[in-house]
Amino acid sequence: MAKKKLTKKLIYEGKSKILYEGPEAGTLIQYFKDDATAFNGEKHEVLSGKGVLNNRISEYVMVKLEDVGIHTHFIKRMNMREQLVKACEMIPIEIIVRNISAGSFCKRFAIDEGINFYRPVIEMCLKSDKLGDPFVTDEHIEIFGWAAAEEVEAMKNIAVRVNDFLCGIFHAVGIKLVDMKLEFGRVFDEDGNLYLLVADEISPDSCRLWDIQTGNVLDKDRFRKNLGGLQEAYREVAKRLGIIHESDTNIVDLNEARGEDK
Amino acid sequence: MAKKKLTKKLIYEGKSKILYEGPEAGTLIQYFKDDATAFNGEKHEVLSGKGVLNNRISEYVMVKLEDVGIHTHFIKRMNMREQLVKACEMIPIEIIVRNISAGSFCKRFAIDEGINFYRPVIEMCLKSDKLGDPFVTDEHIEIFGWAAAEEVEAMKNIAVRVNDFLCGIFHAVGIKLVDMKLEFGRVFDEDGNLYLLVADEISPDSCRLWDIQTGNVLDKDRFRKNLGGLQEAYREVAKRLGIIHESDTNIVDLNEARGEDK
Repeated sequence: MAKKKLTKKLIYEGKSKILYEGPEAGTLIQYFKDDATAFNGEKHEVLSGKGVLNNRISEYVMVKLEDVGIHTHFIKRMNMREQLVKACEMIPIEIIVRNISAGSFCKRFAIDEGINFYRPVIEMCLKSDKLGDPFVTDEHIEIFGWAAAEEVEAMKNIAVRVNDFLCGIFHAVGIKLVDMKLEFGRVFDEDGNLYLLVADEISPDSCRLWDIQTGNVLDKDRFRKNLGGLQEAYREVAKRLGIIHESDTNIVDLNEARGEDK
Repeated sequence: MAKKKLTKKLIYEGKSKILYEGPEAGTLIQYFKDDATAFNGEKHEVLSGKGVLNNRISEYVMVKLEDVGIHTHFIKRMNMREQLVKACEMIPIEIIVRNISAGSFCKRFAIDEGINFYRPVIEMCLKSDKLGDPFVTDEHIEIFGWAAAEEVEAMKNIAVRVNDFLCGIFHAVGIKLVDMKLEFGRVFDEDGNLYLLVADEISPDSCRLWDIQTGNVLDKDRFRKNLGGLQEAYREVAKRLGIIHESDTNIVDLNEARGEDK
């Protein structure tokens, strides 16, 4: 077991996930860490069990997206911390979709949190820790060649679809999708046609989620704003979506979950 | 004379200009101050004569724009520091057009100054001292209702035309137009049709201008970067455009120019 782990080739280590070479060509293993970071890495903590919950939640959401014909990088979950995903060329742009004002958006425009936009607002950031993920427009993306104009258009269109679908899924379990962030990767099919896949993760790390009844924060803002109880909140999201159950003690005993195959 | 000045009703005082009520309905008097500010007002200096030069340069450019069918707020110059302009409802968006990388753009994307873009890059900022003129996209403008989508489209199209025309005008006198900022106002004609006018000013305060031969900075960066010689640089721009001549001593003796009618 230990031997197998040692032979996994590291492809990329990010702040909250690691990518290893997959068992077959064109695949990668995405490992979910417990690390939480915010404010461009200035704030950092290890929140044991977060990775296990995000692995499950992201699996759940991506499977549902495939069901409605939105293609994702997800292939299958391998164990508590790892999932097999399609290897793709990541586009260095984050697509943000906002339904309700929150976070940096409120500060930037001096508006209150909790304002419902009459339609989703799309923003784009360059994925660059060095530059602090600056906001970018179609103009910057074209001039720097980060993605083709058609890709940007496609990412925005897919992001709106994902947002609509997730609003529905979360609404059904008493949760408001406030905003979310998506990342996309490029893959080519056997005929050489380019496809975009929803990649990275979709979880309470990448979405703002508020309880409809109480307004309770069920996402990474619990960490950003020092509210505590992050794991309990993520667990609540997983429970409401029917991913885990009250009786699932193994997912509570999160320190045990080290990403080994079961 | 002094009496006349006292009766002018102040409409708006900005960092480098003042707007007074005009002599007729639908007009305003735009007064050019000598004040230079940068970094959202953190840096401030009075550079005597700057206002006189900008009044002349902006007049020159706006008259030329009208010649090629681009509508501006400019009616006529009244004296050394004042011009009569059409009153319009200002759109709170600055349109920035960049031909060559410079200034904050370089810092934001960690690129060198002086890179020629293969086509002009358009950016938009919300005009708000309080918020530090944040970058905005069509999405923000629509959701906050700062301008109609058609107005944004029109502003961008006009900005590209103005940029092309000014590139030509400046190139002809050995100057590169590096980037520029435009502001627009709305007016209605007698039939109630909405028009957009290029408003505010077009001057070395709002454009970056580099000497083609020497690379010398001929714009407000002389102030931002503490290079000195701002008035000499603006005077050089005015001279090259044929607005003033070596023998124009009255425009050199700038302290005398206090905005009185001659």
